[in-house]
Amino acid sequence: MTAPVPVYLDCDPGVDDTVAIAYLLASPAVELVGVGTVSGNTSAAQAARNTLDLLALAGRDDIPVALGAHDHLDHPFSGGAPHVHGDNGVGGIVLPRSDREVDERTAVELLLDLSRTYAGRLHILAIGPLTNIAHALEADPSLPDRIAEVTVMGGAALSPGNITPVAEANIYNDPQAAAALLDADWDVTLVPLDVTLEHTLSEEQRQQFLADDRPFVVAVGQILDHYFDFYLPSYGARTCALHDPLAAAIAAGGVSPSRALQVPVVVDVSQGPGRGQTIADLRGQRTGPRHHEGVRTRLVLDVDDDAAAHLVATILA
Amino acid sequence: MTAPVPVYLDCDPGVDDTVAIAYLLASPAVELVGVGTVSGNTSAAQAARNTLDLLALAGRDDIPVALGAHDHLDHPFSGGAPHVHGDNGVGGIVLPRSDREVDERTAVELLLDLSRTYAGRLHILAIGPLTNIAHALEADPSLPDRIAEVTVMGGAALSPGNITPVAEANIYNDPQAAAALLDADWDVTLVPLDVTLEHTLSEEQRQQFLADDRPFVVAVGQILDHYFDFYLPSYGARTCALHDPLAAAIAAGGVSPSRALQVPVVVDVSQGPGRGQTIADLRGQRTGPRHHEGVRTRLVLDVDDDAAAHLVATILA
Repeated sequence: MTAPVPVYLDCDPGVDDTVAIAYLLASPAVELVGVGTVSGNTSAAQAARNTLDLLALAGRDDIPVALGAHDHLDHPFSGGAPHVHGDNGVGGIVLPRSDREVDERTAVELLLDLSRTYAGRLHILAIGPLTNIAHALEADPSLPDRIAEVTVMGGAALSPGNITPVAEANIYNDPQAAAALLDADWDVTLVPLDVTLEHTLSEEQRQQFLADDRPFVVAVGQILDHYFDFYLPSYGARTCALHDPLAAAIAAGGVSPSRALQVPVVVDVSQGPGRGQTIADLRGQRTGPRHHEGVRTRLVLDVDDDAAAHLVATILA
Repeated sequence: MTAPVPVYLDCDPGVDDTVAIAYLLASPAVELVGVGTVSGNTSAAQAARNTLDLLALAGRDDIPVALGAHDHLDHPFSGGAPHVHGDNGVGGIVLPRSDREVDERTAVELLLDLSRTYAGRLHILAIGPLTNIAHALEADPSLPDRIAEVTVMGGAALSPGNITPVAEANIYNDPQAAAALLDADWDVTLVPLDVTLEHTLSEEQRQQFLADDRPFVVAVGQILDHYFDFYLPSYGARTCALHDPLAAAIAAGGVSPSRALQVPVVVDVSQGPGRGQTIADLRGQRTGPRHHEGVRTRLVLDVDDDAAAHLVATILA
């Protein structure tokens, strides 16, 4: 049995972030050692409140929660996605309010502290816009030397986008930050819409959360309700894509990509119609996988494992 | 039996252009009433020379060939793709030189003349960069009123590009011209790499051309030789993608798209990494085809017919 991997989670809960947090708390493969929040699905402040309340409900007030960037590198926060994640980011569910407040450190300070505490072992799991990570890289360009790996939920390679025809929301919300992350010298696993849209949770699985005897797990099921409504027109059924949870499961090694390519990925930071697109060079892959030498970005294109079953089983264990 | 559709071909032969021309000459469904050339695979002038020589070999000196744009809307011709199409655009094969010279009209003048001669019936088939079409639209904004339909080989929707990770060569070579064509008020069928890369010619089919008793058909088989070498690493076999011929077959109705969507397509005209990309809005298609109301661009995404067999049979008939 190997020691659990220490994980710093950068997030914007967020309904699917909530499921990812539930998974990270339950997985024996990882130890969630700190959470930073960023504006995305909701404001960074609301995301922090949600994280504090969720961790309290889970009995994990020991995990520091630090407030990150409200605004993005070159533009202000635009108000989030209440039609997707509810007015409060957690599907409109009012969680019991935790007494705990955010850490006195910023998300960047927390990440840098953790990178020293767990030097060489810390895994960054970023499931919101990448603003905090970009600020951390700017504050300490040596950060990558102390990070084992970075996993990002974001982007779209051959799949359509979800916020523009070609852009996925996390990357679109801060393209410059995403570019900075991908430019840094560390191993990045990018988990794009190509795979996250292919893994969904069923209403039956949601009901299993609701039937659990732990208030935290029940809350996860409740929080998913509004999100399932949002996805009804897209899938023709009450369900949801497992964006952030899939990235968490890949980071934890609970789910393994069946197809992942080391290829150059460039973020379109222009103001044109391609803004926020993750442009992956997938030419020349017809005769078999072709990795580009020296490229440290691994683009996940297929996951054959039943990620939903693994996530549910882990959370319910 | 309906009357053949009059077709103005805008092209840059080009090996696959050559196959498209052979098909258009052989198909009873279309009447090739004029050809304009543009720089792309080779220079507009070389493309005109190739077209004149090919038509002479086919005994079709009655079809006017007009010289079109050497340079593109906002940048000069960059030299073509000799590694793909050979130094002379037709795979390095030296064709018998026709005595005929290009029409005294420019490609734009020829197109505008034909649009009056065949008003309401003329079909434009554009299989090179779209510079001439953009110039024609500028010279006579009423052109679309006299055109039945436009078919374009170009772009990439969910497929990787072929000249950049996201751009196909015809569109990339003149993004502004492509944008002008897609902005005009006419019915456009866009035949992108998503389908053209899926339809290939076999060495056995090429041998059938070589074994024909008509010098023109034999020349088509010879011209394909170098092109087959180019495609060897991509497909792991001597073969070629049927880019331009597939667009010709769709324009002629000889091959029918099995999946084609009326969706907005925007061309990235920025200087960013997405330059030349055809950005199609393919969101929301998971539960079945969804056409966008009022959109006159039809994006071909699947062709189930055996296009290669149809093309070969037509050319050999």
